[in-house]
Amino acid sequence: MDQRQATGAEIRRAAARGELTGPTPGLALGYVQANLVIVPRELAYDFLLFCQRNPKPCPLLDVTEPGNPEPRLVAPGADLRTDLPCYRVYRKGELVEEPTDLRGWWRDDLVAFLIGCSFTFENALLQAGVPLRHIEAGCNVPMYRTNIACKPAGLFHGPMVVSMRPLSPTDTVRATQICARFPKAHGTPVHFGSPQDIGIPDLNKPDFGDPVAVLAGEVPVFWACGVTPQAVAMEVRPPLLITHKPGHMFVTDLQDTDLEAG
Amino acid sequence: MDQRQATGAEIRRAAARGELTGPTPGLALGYVQANLVIVPRELAYDFLLFCQRNPKPCPLLDVTEPGNPEPRLVAPGADLRTDLPCYRVYRKGELVEEPTDLRGWWRDDLVAFLIGCSFTFENALLQAGVPLRHIEAGCNVPMYRTNIACKPAGLFHGPMVVSMRPLSPTDTVRATQICARFPKAHGTPVHFGSPQDIGIPDLNKPDFGDPVAVLAGEVPVFWACGVTPQAVAMEVRPPLLITHKPGHMFVTDLQDTDLEAG
Repeated sequence: MDQRQATGAEIRRAAARGELTGPTPGLALGYVQANLVIVPRELAYDFLLFCQRNPKPCPLLDVTEPGNPEPRLVAPGADLRTDLPCYRVYRKGELVEEPTDLRGWWRDDLVAFLIGCSFTFENALLQAGVPLRHIEAGCNVPMYRTNIACKPAGLFHGPMVVSMRPLSPTDTVRATQICARFPKAHGTPVHFGSPQDIGIPDLNKPDFGDPVAVLAGEVPVFWACGVTPQAVAMEVRPPLLITHKPGHMFVTDLQDTDLEAG
Repeated sequence: MDQRQATGAEIRRAAARGELTGPTPGLALGYVQANLVIVPRELAYDFLLFCQRNPKPCPLLDVTEPGNPEPRLVAPGADLRTDLPCYRVYRKGELVEEPTDLRGWWRDDLVAFLIGCSFTFENALLQAGVPLRHIEAGCNVPMYRTNIACKPAGLFHGPMVVSMRPLSPTDTVRATQICARFPKAHGTPVHFGSPQDIGIPDLNKPDFGDPVAVLAGEVPVFWACGVTPQAVAMEVRPPLLITHKPGHMFVTDLQDTDLEAG
């Protein structure tokens, strides 16, 4: 199977069988990929409100019923306990395990949140001829904690995490225009230019992902990032919070075009 | 005071003092008005998820902390128990009272939801020269229960309520374009043309508001409506659900332009 041309369901099955444990960028091209956050029901209201108040880092695509691992709106029949290549389990803010299967961790009170992902707008940018350095370099996008505070909601508060892509000014304008079509995939940039202005001391030292070069004539452009809940988890230290491993996303049945603003 | 030129805060104070008990359309022009829904904390997760799954009828602007009647994001310092002209109290789906003050009903476990309102896009339509029949006629917009099912969430399920405005085909296209800028104020229409196609038997008999004429060469255009939670309450019959009286909205500190998609 050429996993680039696979369907979302085929990628999920490969992950469930243990045949896919690596990252998902570039797989099932055209299918919407999603960030995963799982919390106990007693934290679900606060986390849902956190997403509602912070739609740029946390645009919600689906929320499961307590105890039911099926995301009925975006991938009926799928199982969030098995269908991602790799997970991260945080206990009191500490990363305690990176399992490839969540069945041992699953509980009847867990609620899963699926959150839009930058791959959706990256596909649209590439189709429009906007070059993306981390994809050319074959590495992960660089991500940074910022001094932009998310709007708090109950237990949840913390810094926004952003991803960065270096672009020419012309491509920055074009990218803004294109990303405006995808509010469910982080939408328009939150900043461009000086990293210090949003509390990033050194672009060469990302908090997540890999550094990429910013060339002469380019500006660093920053988007709100779906890794934000992981930074929030490290700050808030809830008893249990489970996510995907960065880059190892849930692939839905939705098409990128389904996420365009209506 | 000319209430048309008043600020949101001035309208709220007039309502709190009992000087304003009537409808709010046309007041504090340019300020965002909002639908109000109040439920006990034990229903708040289900209602929040209902809004998240049904963003066209229920675009959320603010959610209060349990027991605290201050909507901090959209009108810091305001008091949702007093600052609306009139309320509706539903017990088990029955309208039991239309108080002008909620202090007698308030409880420490109540959570208030503020939901975007069509007045925001109507102002934009009028500014663009799109005529609105119910405003010309000086009556309330007609609203109808439909056979469009909202996506259920926990306890909450029920039919979408729509508002209707008759427009020429050219103005329908223009209105769609303009309303696309305001996803937090119901966004683009959900239907135009045959009322029967969405389960409305007779345009002359709206379920809420007043009927208006559809003239030759016009089509009825339907938008998702913030009265939907009231129709849902009548269907679901929760122990307690409090709303504004239709047309008697909460006026925020936000400007209509603040709601434009970003």
